[in-house]
Amino acid sequence: MSRRSVTQQDLPKVAANGLIDRRVLLRNSALLAGAAGAGFTGIVRAAAEPLAVDDWSMKIGTGVQPYSTPSRYEAKVIRTLANPTNPGNNQARTPHHLLDGIITPNGVHFVVARTGAPDIDPAKHRLLIHGMVRQPLVFSLEDLMRYPMESHIRFVECGGNSAPMWSKEPIQADVQALHGLLSCSEWTGVRLSTLLDEAGVDPRAKWIVAEGADAATMNRSIPLAKAMDDAMLVFYQNGERIMPINGYPLRLFVPGYEGNMNVKWLRRLKLVDAPIMAINESRQYTLLLENGSAWRFYYPMEVKSFITRPSPTMQMKGPGFYEISGIAWSGQGRIAKVEVSADGGKSWGMAAMQNPVLPKALTRFRMAWQWDGRPVVLQSRATDEAGNVQPTRAKLIAERGEPRNTPNVNAFPMNHVNAISSWAVAANGAVSHVYV
Amino acid sequence: MSRRSVTQQDLPKVAANGLIDRRVLLRNSALLAGAAGAGFTGIVRAAAEPLAVDDWSMKIGTGVQPYSTPSRYEAKVIRTLANPTNPGNNQARTPHHLLDGIITPNGVHFVVARTGAPDIDPAKHRLLIHGMVRQPLVFSLEDLMRYPMESHIRFVECGGNSAPMWSKEPIQADVQALHGLLSCSEWTGVRLSTLLDEAGVDPRAKWIVAEGADAATMNRSIPLAKAMDDAMLVFYQNGERIMPINGYPLRLFVPGYEGNMNVKWLRRLKLVDAPIMAINESRQYTLLLENGSAWRFYYPMEVKSFITRPSPTMQMKGPGFYEISGIAWSGQGRIAKVEVSADGGKSWGMAAMQNPVLPKALTRFRMAWQWDGRPVVLQSRATDEAGNVQPTRAKLIAERGEPRNTPNVNAFPMNHVNAISSWAVAANGAVSHVYV
Repeated sequence: MSRRSVTQQDLPKVAANGLIDRRVLLRNSALLAGAAGAGFTGIVRAAAEPLAVDDWSMKIGTGVQPYSTPSRYEAKVIRTLANPTNPGNNQARTPHHLLDGIITPNGVHFVVARTGAPDIDPAKHRLLIHGMVRQPLVFSLEDLMRYPMESHIRFVECGGNSAPMWSKEPIQADVQALHGLLSCSEWTGVRLSTLLDEAGVDPRAKWIVAEGADAATMNRSIPLAKAMDDAMLVFYQNGERIMPINGYPLRLFVPGYEGNMNVKWLRRLKLVDAPIMAINESRQYTLLLENGSAWRFYYPMEVKSFITRPSPTMQMKGPGFYEISGIAWSGQGRIAKVEVSADGGKSWGMAAMQNPVLPKALTRFRMAWQWDGRPVVLQSRATDEAGNVQPTRAKLIAERGEPRNTPNVNAFPMNHVNAISSWAVAANGAVSHVYV
Repeated sequence: MSRRSVTQQDLPKVAANGLIDRRVLLRNSALLAGAAGAGFTGIVRAAAEPLAVDDWSMKIGTGVQPYSTPSRYEAKVIRTLANPTNPGNNQARTPHHLLDGIITPNGVHFVVARTGAPDIDPAKHRLLIHGMVRQPLVFSLEDLMRYPMESHIRFVECGGNSAPMWSKEPIQADVQALHGLLSCSEWTGVRLSTLLDEAGVDPRAKWIVAEGADAATMNRSIPLAKAMDDAMLVFYQNGERIMPINGYPLRLFVPGYEGNMNVKWLRRLKLVDAPIMAINESRQYTLLLENGSAWRFYYPMEVKSFITRPSPTMQMKGPGFYEISGIAWSGQGRIAKVEVSADGGKSWGMAAMQNPVLPKALTRFRMAWQWDGRPVVLQSRATDEAGNVQPTRAKLIAERGEPRNTPNVNAFPMNHVNAISSWAVAANGAVSHVYV
């Protein structure tokens, strides 16, 4: 009960420019024992006057609604829409700079959709499994939901997420615009392998063509090995049925693989012996290199992280204590560690990772920081359990060639961009996007 | 790839009336290897005709909205409101029979509120910490959010949840009505101990009076030991800022303790040396026993579980394979095991628990079941890591005396009711609530 307060100067630094040992966040008592002083952040306000009774406490409030939506004071915590008037090519991004934790609320899960959300009646919707199978099968939703289910907290990330980072000059925008085609939810459904077992897969089948019921007939070839491993057909997103724009009433879920493979409004799975070269694998999610060759059929989203707070367009309120907070993830499994730098990558300190650290899910990391008011460059670098380390921008450029222009945030000059992000904090507290 | 299908008769039973070894759900290949046959559920439909192209696939759908809400076909997945026209005493329950996984979406988190949601401006809201402290302090939201944060997936349960189970005759209602004052979210905020350290707690202080900014001025005494242990001040619920009716912009969070202690719209924390005997501890959440004595100041919600599917008011579609699914939790820590019975508690089989199994969070359990079409009584029984076992109804009655009447679902004849629930499945598939 009598643990004393801590002064910032007592806290052990682990890297340049004020990064503090993560054990402070874990409330390591040995670390805190020697410290005493006037406060943690240096910004606490002593109370002098009695607390005012505000107007809102003087009257009956709003009654319970059948379904809650956020406070009117949080009206900015919404998806940004690339083409709000054109459902023909719609991206909508998650406002990570305004969120915390690892769960993305269903209201603001990111979206890429070509023809909007079809208004599917779940009582009439059917799923067909056919092609190279012993017995073609057709399922109603009610049939599908009789099978054993699983729930997993998993991220989905568009293959084109972070594309704005692939510009000649750093685009000045918030992390919603730069990295917002990424979300993480608890998904519940049946294993795809359970249903494939029912149909009886021909041993010569090697691929599955998944097709959606949207007007664009989104489709994509999925390797059979992945389908039999951890792919799912999902019905629930964070406990409730999937949002219409995220695939209601049925979505293919392919953990860790690029977003477009998680086919929404799923209506058909066809077992085949070769990929069908759909537009989403032959053109959209192909990576054309400088030397004229192309990468195709590369699935897992690479290890990545970025700092959500502080981040570009924010304004810091002078020197003192701050928590640096961000998210890390990998399509290859769990995050093994996240390091943070306050000197543009010259020195690194280990961030605290919030439990639970789950495979193919966002991991929230936090780093204690004492900012002395001088300009710094903040970075985070994630490493996954497979040993993959998030690359520098220079390393990615060496592999893929120099970016050729500085497009707007809605262009996709490159896919699978997982380079380290750099946020500069100026002496006046302004946070901006820089290349170092 | 060539794993064969499974017939139900091949699957190893672990308890009476068709309960199947949980390793089937974990896809234990040794268990499945010997099985072959015509299907898992026995209800798959062979495809004969080509899949129809539905109307909704023939036109452009709805564009992305800034903030999603569920499909119009899920209009029933809402909270049920005890007194929709009277904000003066409002309970609203989570529809657990229509959800899956462990996360409760923010739209349908349960509510108990006396005077509705105050319309708090976060820029003007203040928190005062005073009383037996070295230095009284007042915080703005912006000040509070400078401190180190943590995120935890945790349940909240009203002390009066499951009160409808304390009636002379079993009330016929769904699990939303019977057990719906319970929800589970990822909560993010600062540790209360961090702020108490800033204020400097007088060693003679033993309690904290927490007070809300609602018109009812909800208040409650919290033991200082719990405040210094794992209590938090939370800002975020499943990633986004707390819903207005759940305490926006600031809520006290006391993991595992009864719901009313998690004071919403928090405005004041006063350090004192004795509890103040607020209505919520001297009357509302006091338990008057038959012998005239009363239980007061008992905090943790006891170990409990119930089956969400199948559950009362549902109608089963004939014999065959079903997954029994439910949730378990304990205010004392992690769930250690969940057992399921299909013969009213005479024999038990171990259910599969979905990872991650987190302390003071919901745990989703699942049990494979081959129903032969005869009447059965389904039960679940949870045990927590502290060794507490969910009691039978008879045991609870022996401790507390016989229920005296059969009230409606909105009455609270008893608090902290954690007895095993019994759902009867009739030969015609109707599921009802019974006492055994």
